[in-house]
Formats: sequence, structure tokens, C-alpha cells
Amino acid sequence: VPTLSCPGFRFAGVAAGIKSTGARDLGLIVAEGPAHAAAVFTRNQVAAAPVIVSRAALARSRGLVRAVVVNSGNANACTGAQGLVAARAMVAATAAAAAAPRREVLVASTGIIGHRLPMPAVRAGIAAAGRSLAPDLAPFADAILTTDRCSKTARRRARLGGTPVRLVGCTKGAGMIAPNMATTLTFVCTDAAVPVATLRGSLAGAVAATFNALTIDGDTSTNDMLLVLASGAARNPRMTAADRRTFARALTAVLDHLAVQLMRGGEGVHHVVTVRVVGARSHAAAATVARSIAPSPLVKTAIAGRDPNWGRVIHAVGYSGARIREEMVDIYFDGRCAAKHGLATDTPITELQRAVSRPKFRLCIDLNLGSGEYNIYTSDLSPEYVVFNREEYALTKQKASS
Amino acid sequence: VPTLSCPGFRFAGVAAGIKSTGARDLGLIVAEGPAHAAAVFTRNQVAAAPVIVSRAALARSRGLVRAVVVNSGNANACTGAQGLVAARAMVAATAAAAAAPRREVLVASTGIIGHRLPMPAVRAGIAAAGRSLAPDLAPFADAILTTDRCSKTARRRARLGGTPVRLVGCTKGAGMIAPNMATTLTFVCTDAAVPVATLRGSLAGAVAATFNALTIDGDTSTNDMLLVLASGAARNPRMTAADRRTFARALTAVLDHLAVQLMRGGEGVHHVVTVRVVGARSHAAAATVARSIAPSPLVKTAIAGRDPNWGRVIHAVGYSGARIREEMVDIYFDGRCAAKHGLATDTPITELQRAVSRPKFRLCIDLNLGSGEYNIYTSDLSPEYVVFNREEYALTKQKASS
Repeated sequence: VPTLSCPGFRFAGVAAGIKSTGARDLGLIVAEGPAHAAAVFTRNQVAAAPVIVSRAALARSRGLVRAVVVNSGNANACTGAQGLVAARAMVAATAAAAAAPRREVLVASTGIIGHRLPMPAVRAGIAAAGRSLAPDLAPFADAILTTDRCSKTARRRARLGGTPVRLVGCTKGAGMIAPNMATTLTFVCTDAAVPVATLRGSLAGAVAATFNALTIDGDTSTNDMLLVLASGAARNPRMTAADRRTFARALTAVLDHLAVQLMRGGEGVHHVVTVRVVGARSHAAAATVARSIAPSPLVKTAIAGRDPNWGRVIHAVGYSGARIREEMVDIYFDGRCAAKHGLATDTPITELQRAVSRPKFRLCIDLNLGSGEYNIYTSDLSPEYVVFNREEYALTKQKASS
Repeated sequence: VPTLSCPGFRFAGVAAGIKSTGARDLGLIVAEGPAHAAAVFTRNQVAAAPVIVSRAALARSRGLVRAVVVNSGNANACTGAQGLVAARAMVAATAAAAAAPRREVLVASTGIIGHRLPMPAVRAGIAAAGRSLAPDLAPFADAILTTDRCSKTARRRARLGGTPVRLVGCTKGAGMIAPNMATTLTFVCTDAAVPVATLRGSLAGAVAATFNALTIDGDTSTNDMLLVLASGAARNPRMTAADRRTFARALTAVLDHLAVQLMRGGEGVHHVVTVRVVGARSHAAAATVARSIAPSPLVKTAIAGRDPNWGRVIHAVGYSGARIREEMVDIYFDGRCAAKHGLATDTPITELQRAVSRPKFRLCIDLNLGSGEYNIYTSDLSPEYVVFNREEYALTKQKASS
């Protein structure tokens, strides 16, 4: 039995020829029966056709899903009515391949924007994937990748009412922080028996603490989708309140592990930084300050240079829009105080540099005004990041002229 | 008579030793009599001591200014009560050097954050500058620079009621777009006789169309300041409505020229791009969309790669927060249509590439929903930008350990 398996689900990942590299680019998840499902979709007003189709399908089926089809290499975004026809054709082909009702099939896409899907290749790929379904998640995890350097998976075990259950998941996306995240697709499967309403509640909490701290539902891509499926194959007893907490914790742990891999796997990322704002007047104010610091190019380039530059941090605190008091602001790099009451401290610069040099560290800002807190992930901004995103061009040009 | 002179004003720029490089770092502007003044200051809640002092002075003097002292190499920001004492000491020393009342002296600083000013050097520099006052603006324009590669000046002539008047100005700052602009200091002097209220009105309009499209009063530095001084030495007649329009146009032209130089002079900037949003439901909605596109690292890296990547543009339109309709969005690169009604056009990719390759081009987004318009400047994001901002560290470290 492969490590990345989950009773009640089979997976496939094949090379359908959507990517010119010959890499896997089409994946399927098929549940034995209708799985319970909860999902978070992008809130970008420019939503890709598969997002529109899947959001509507999930609402209609009231959270029942039998199969999911995903392609990489082409986002089917900004493709108009034709794109919707293509997404629905993917659903129909998958329903046939998985012997599932069409209304219980979801579709997701990721890749370049504004180009038509090569439907003959996609259809053939879906049929081939349908023939290669197996318990191992790994080929599926590969098939959803685009610019990722490696596949990103996570698993977790838990006990619900004494019954062991498992969660397995995978994600894709380059580690860019809001408001410019690359498309993130994330899929988690569990064999736990979880009512749809409980699944939705657990997902909302888990996403707020993990992927929304990157973020997925705010200022994001046209194609973002995060889906949790529960087969119920573990046959755990009806969940108690304690079971719901256990499940929510396990789901949060899986998503956190995937989120950190997303950050670490980002193009040219050398440092994953937790920006933690405490002492804000409210949770919302803490979020406002954290979301001002995290995407700042000046903060991110300072981190790339291993520079404990608290001046750039307080600068971003000041323009965040949240009401703050400069003379109350403390700034810490991994627990070392760089600024106290808005002024430089005597902490030796070498100690601060050591903190900023770590591949993972925490930048904490205490506003000393209340009890509002918020965490968000960010990363350094390196020349490699720019080179990578500049040279994705080669791909665009190729596709645009084909 | 030097080209960059303005009757009624004398200027100086000296090396006071605040910068370790020995470059000019202290500048003075001295007016023959009390000049009329209007200013825009940063809205960052973390405002540097000189901003606090100058804002209060200008309010108290009701827009009369006799002298301005500026230092570079040290921002006197995040320096607490000590910083305020230092800023007031600069005012006092300048009042003595220029034989001006203290309440008609303004002060500005730019440079590193969180370090004390070397006051003996500053005081000696002010005295030396006072002895070297002359009609030429050029030494002053040099003295306000920090990481700029060259000084940035502009001039303009106009006629008010038949009398010729002139405007000269200079600016400093590296070309970073909001919300992470480096400190911008900008000074414009005119010999026109302009009432304070008219000066304020002209400045508000001119700034909205130029520097606020980079931006100066929103999400910005601790030290930003833009000051216009009018000596009245030209003795033009009392301004008519037509004269006010003429003067506002001239001031806007000077600020636009300075703003474009700011962008062009930015670290690693190869392309200056006007992001123009038209057809929005309102002016505010147009601004929201433009301010979403302009700072996007994915849009900016695409421009660095000369990639007419309209997918990244529409993506930023979608997450801007303004209500838009994807199927109505048109995107143009220098007049060449890349996307129409949210879909790719047949415009040859080579034509679009040619537009994006220009050192200056316009990216126009037509939302086709109304008549709201907004322009904003942005630039490409190049590896050189990151290297520069990462390696500014060397300076910080040096200063922090000195």
C-alpha cells in the first residue's frame, strides 16, 4: 500500500500533451461513492471557467463529489464562452471515465492564461487517466504542478471516536505572497466520515490559519481552488464535539504543512518568514498591519540580503492604514529585539543578522495597543525570483505563437 | 546667470560629512523676503522629526517661508524626542545662518532610518552653506540626493498677465512605486507673485496628476515632502482666473518632468510605464484598478522581460476590489490591443512585444463601464532592483556599527 493513499479514493496522473515538456499534466481523483466535499475558491472577479463550473456544481450537488479532473499547462482562464464549453466537456469526459454522475464531477485548471485548451488531447488524457486509477496519490500530485520544482504532499493520522482515520493532500503553486500569488490548487482526501457541514466549518478555520495567511481567497489568482473530500471509508462513529476539534486540528496541520512547502518551494525563495503582529487594537487591525509588511518589496529584499532592517518594517507599519503609535512599536527578529518603543535597541547587529539568516524565522511586531493578533507568511525577494518571472516569457511567447 | 536660478532665491549645497562618501549632503534655500509656500507631506503615521517640525511651522506661519534646510544621509526618522530636538536645532542654526525668523524656517531630511544626526557636523555644514549661497540651484539639487544616480531638475517659463515668470525645481528619490517608495523630497521655486491660497490650490491639482500617481501622500515614506515657494520677485500683476490656470499648468509640467525623472532614475529601471485605466464606473474605481496593477510584481517582472503578458494585467484588475466585468475588459500596449472583451486578440505578438520593449510606453485598460479615468506611473522590476535593495545592507550595517 503506497504511503500516500486514502481508503475510498483512487488517483491518476498522466501526460496528456497539454504541456510541451511531456510532463504529467492531467490528474483524476475518483471516489468509490459520493464523497462529502467542502471547497474554497478564488474571490478574484476574473475567475477561470473551471472555477465557475466547479463552484456551481458543488452548490447544486450540496457538497457531494464523485470525481475531480485537473489539468496543468493551461489555466482555461480569460477564454470566454468557449472556456466554459471546454470546462463542461472535461466534466462530461470525466463522468464517462469514472462512471460518475456529471453533477458530482468538479474540474480545475492551472497554467497560462488566455489560451484555448487542446480538447482532443485533454479528452484522450482523461480516458487514459481513467484507465490508470490506483490508490497512490503521487502521480496526481505530479500532474497538477506547473512551475513548481517538486511535488508537495502531506499526510496526517488521527482518531475519531477511537477509529483511526487518515488525511492525505497535495498542493501546487509557486511561493508568491498576496496580492500576486500564482495559482494554488490544493486537494485533501480523508477516509473519515464527516458531515458536509462539519467539513465546511473545519475547512473555514483551517484555511484562515494557513492558506489565507498566504492568501487564497483575497487578492489572488483566477484559478485558485482548495478542496477537501471525505469518503467515510473509515466508518468512524458519529462525530462528537471532541472529534470535530480533532479533525479540525488534523486538517489544519495538513494544510499548514502544504502551505509551508508552497512558500519554501517558491521561485528563488531562501527564507520563509512568519510575520506575526500582536498587540493590535483588533484582529482586523493586526491583519491590516501584517498584510502591509508581508508583500513589501523593501522588506523582502532586505530579508534576501539578511539585513535586519527594522526601519523598512516600521515604515510599512506606518503606511498600513491601521491606527498605530510609533512610540509604542516593538520589533523582534526571532525573539531578538531590534526596536523598542519605535527606537533602535542595543541588541548587537550580529545577533539580529543571525536571526534573519535562518531559512525560517519569525518577524514579530508588537503594537502595544491591544490584544489583536495575526500571522502571515512571507518570503524574501531574490534576484532569482525576478529572473524566473521575467523568463516565464519564453513559455508565453511559444504558446502565443503556436 | 545660471540656467537653474530663480529671482528672489539663493541656494547652497555643501559636504557636511553626514555621508561617509564625502558627497554633498546639506542644502539651503534662502528667500530674500518671506516667500509664499505650499507643501504636501507624507501621510505615513510614522513621520520623521523634520516632517513633524516643518508641518507645524508651515501651519503656524500661515504659509510664509524664509529658508529651508535639507540634509541627506540620515533621515532623522524613528529617533524619538531626540530627533525632534535635532530637527529644531537645525531650524535654529539655519535661522541664524540666513538671518531669518525661526518660525519661517523649514527642515527636511532623507537617508537611513533610526540613527541620530551628527549634530556638530550638521551645524558646521549649515554655517558653511550660509556662506556659499548663490543663485544656482544645482549644488542644492546635488545635496538632497541619496541613492540617486544623478540629480533631477526641471524648469519652465510662463507669462502671468504679460509678465514673464519662471519655475525651477529639483527632486530626489529612487524610482519605486507605492506602497514602497523611497523618500521623495521635491522643491519648486518660482518668482511669480502667487497668493498662498492659489499656491495651495495649484499644488493640490498638480500633485494629484503627477507625484500622487507615484505616490507621495498615501502609502509612503516617513520623510516625503514636496514644497513650492513663490518669491514674487517677478512682480506680475494680480492673478486672473486665466493666470491661475497658466500657473497650475506650468507647475504640473515641472512636477511631471521631475516625477518621470524619479521613475527613470530608479534602481534597475529600464521601462517607465503609464498605467492608464479608462471606462471605470468612477474616478475612484479607476484609481483602485490602476493602484492594483502598478505595484504587481508579476506585471512588473513581465515588463522587465518585455513580455506583453495581459493575463497578469487582467488578473490584477480582477483582484483590485473594484467591481468589473471580465467580458468587458480591453487591454492595450501603446495602442495595440492585446485583449478585447476579456479575450486574446489576433494582434501579432511581435507588435505587442515592440510596444513593451520601449523605455517608455502606455498600458491602457478600458473597463467599458463608465467614464472614470486614472493614470499612474510604474516601472519594470528587474534583478538589478533586487540586488540594489538587498545590498543597501552594506550601508545599514556600517552605520549601525559606527
